[in-house]
Amino acid sequence: MARRSALPPIPDFAVLRSRLDRAREAAAGTGLVIAPGSDLRYLIGQPGGSFERLTALLIPADGAPALVVPKLEAPGFTGLEELGVDVITWVDGVDPYSLAAERLGGVERVAVSDFTPALHVLAIRDALPKAEQMLAGPIVRELRMRKDAAEIEALRKAGAAIDRVHARVGEWLRPGRTEAEVGADIAAAIVEEGHTEADFVIVASGPNGASPHHALSERVIEAGDVVVVDIGGPVAEGYNSDSTRTYAVGAPRDADVTATYAVLQQAQQAAVDAVRPGATAESIDAAARDVIAAAGFGEYFIHRTGHGIGLDVHEEPYIVAGNDLPLEAGMAFSVEPGIYQPGRWGARIEDIVVVTADGGESMNNQPHDLVVL
Amino acid sequence: MARRSALPPIPDFAVLRSRLDRAREAAAGTGLVIAPGSDLRYLIGQPGGSFERLTALLIPADGAPALVVPKLEAPGFTGLEELGVDVITWVDGVDPYSLAAERLGGVERVAVSDFTPALHVLAIRDALPKAEQMLAGPIVRELRMRKDAAEIEALRKAGAAIDRVHARVGEWLRPGRTEAEVGADIAAAIVEEGHTEADFVIVASGPNGASPHHALSERVIEAGDVVVVDIGGPVAEGYNSDSTRTYAVGAPRDADVTATYAVLQQAQQAAVDAVRPGATAESIDAAARDVIAAAGFGEYFIHRTGHGIGLDVHEEPYIVAGNDLPLEAGMAFSVEPGIYQPGRWGARIEDIVVVTADGGESMNNQPHDLVVL
Repeated sequence: MARRSALPPIPDFAVLRSRLDRAREAAAGTGLVIAPGSDLRYLIGQPGGSFERLTALLIPADGAPALVVPKLEAPGFTGLEELGVDVITWVDGVDPYSLAAERLGGVERVAVSDFTPALHVLAIRDALPKAEQMLAGPIVRELRMRKDAAEIEALRKAGAAIDRVHARVGEWLRPGRTEAEVGADIAAAIVEEGHTEADFVIVASGPNGASPHHALSERVIEAGDVVVVDIGGPVAEGYNSDSTRTYAVGAPRDADVTATYAVLQQAQQAAVDAVRPGATAESIDAAARDVIAAAGFGEYFIHRTGHGIGLDVHEEPYIVAGNDLPLEAGMAFSVEPGIYQPGRWGARIEDIVVVTADGGESMNNQPHDLVVL
Repeated sequence: MARRSALPPIPDFAVLRSRLDRAREAAAGTGLVIAPGSDLRYLIGQPGGSFERLTALLIPADGAPALVVPKLEAPGFTGLEELGVDVITWVDGVDPYSLAAERLGGVERVAVSDFTPALHVLAIRDALPKAEQMLAGPIVRELRMRKDAAEIEALRKAGAAIDRVHARVGEWLRPGRTEAEVGADIAAAIVEEGHTEADFVIVASGPNGASPHHALSERVIEAGDVVVVDIGGPVAEGYNSDSTRTYAVGAPRDADVTATYAVLQQAQQAAVDAVRPGATAESIDAAARDVIAAAGFGEYFIHRTGHGIGLDVHEEPYIVAGNDLPLEAGMAFSVEPGIYQPGRWGARIEDIVVVTADGGESMNNQPHDLVVL
């Protein structure tokens, strides 16, 4: 059995060759080991599958990159020759880590991709005992967080697709239905509107809305509930949507909803308006947080303002206090402040924003108002 | 956003407490760090979600186990108090690795679960610079590969569910349809028949059948094709099915199919018949391989005979040459020899077998004959 699905579309070979070259340059003498997943998809156009058997792209300091791959899995990869990536196959009984060590040569430092399983991390450590082991994330993210025009177009497509789902939430969100029932309908619509799958569906109603990471439950939605709907998934190109709107099922039960929501809306807009090249990631977080704190709700905004997005739903840059990274054109991230009133209700507004030459472009364009159904 | 779905059913607290105790005993002074996934589900009844933020169960050599978890994720876990597991929450800005190091104390050895992301593996290494880092897999697998009665019952339920899907394959597998179309119907049926999702669907027709890890393609199925259908997924308890049958769409095109398939069927039966306590894992592999080799097809059986199965589709014990593990009652694994004729066709027969007190019990009971549709 195998869990590889049909092959994704491969970006232009010239784009991928350029990414491979730039990864090697950014590694500056460190050998790279990239396991299946988004980093691999970014570099060779296909994510591979993560199994207990080692599959990894090796980018040595010198010489051609190579994919170490079980012989049975090799037919699942295409275009490697055009990319200048050698293929090193292995069969059960062979030690793939010594094959990897051989290709990487006598490097002093080896960087493994951030989501490489420990199984492989420690075996690579043992196969290259003299090399210092570090993470490849800080190297690869330098490339991945600066999106090119095609990547931004894919994010735009994903954003439009999830906007169409939010536009339809009123079809399903009604008193008497459970969060899980509403969530199932939304999940189906996420696929109908152009995603390859529904990666996550949060329908957090009433008091559940006060827990930012509540997903779905059997709670029955009641008239007067405020409901946080946070949804997304990938489009065929692999890039993700992620957008939150807050709904009210009839007039909100709690008297403080309208005024509090107005503060939230103002905070989210302030953060979006602050996006421009040169602004730091933490300044975007502060732009939202300052508005919420000034209104006296600081203690109820209990998470960072956002996360980068692309081939992963969560990636660099993180929009959080302490991150002084200056934003650059092509960076893409969520702007999603929330206010959470424990035991009663919560609200969040989330758009994906891409940094442009002189500001920011929102990938999500549904109205920001509380949607009263 | 979060990718945690509704909570799975939790096994009996007494069972889980016993597993936690036995894990500590098996660790024999080594501190354990268990990241979200099947190992975590095995030990505390819920898998957690794997994010860039650290969530991990810590089992120190002395003192109570603890779950280090982002404050936002903590509400997603239940029953920890009943299990005697402390909860250590952290918020953005705090270093969770020093919290983990503190709880683990001055251990000499730290074992991380096999699929812990490198991101966390290396940060834990740095937080405990004097501790030798190793894999927890060899420790946890000693528990996980010996299934108890409830686990076997869940495997039996999964096996019966996938058998019902195989019984219906004739509804969908017809000339003129693509593998992908047939696969979509099978995926829907996997859920209809009692799985929570379709984890993998292989429909490998004609020449594609000669590639054991081919999944689905746009190839149009033709009369005379031999088609390998390898499918499975988890049931609500988290335990997986995985079963392969080989179909022929009308009379097989290739003249050698019938005789070759008879050898395969004999080989698979020989391996199933060899299952009993005390037999080694590699002896089961040899039982199938010897039959195939004796018939002259040895070079066309290009993978191991099987893999353990449980909360993971692939886990210990592996049924492969070189694995001299003696089988014990309660071990569960696939028996899935195949014969692959490059460029023409392939065939595989796969059942999940559980070792009993005096032999083996198959979780799959659809006939083993080539199914001519």
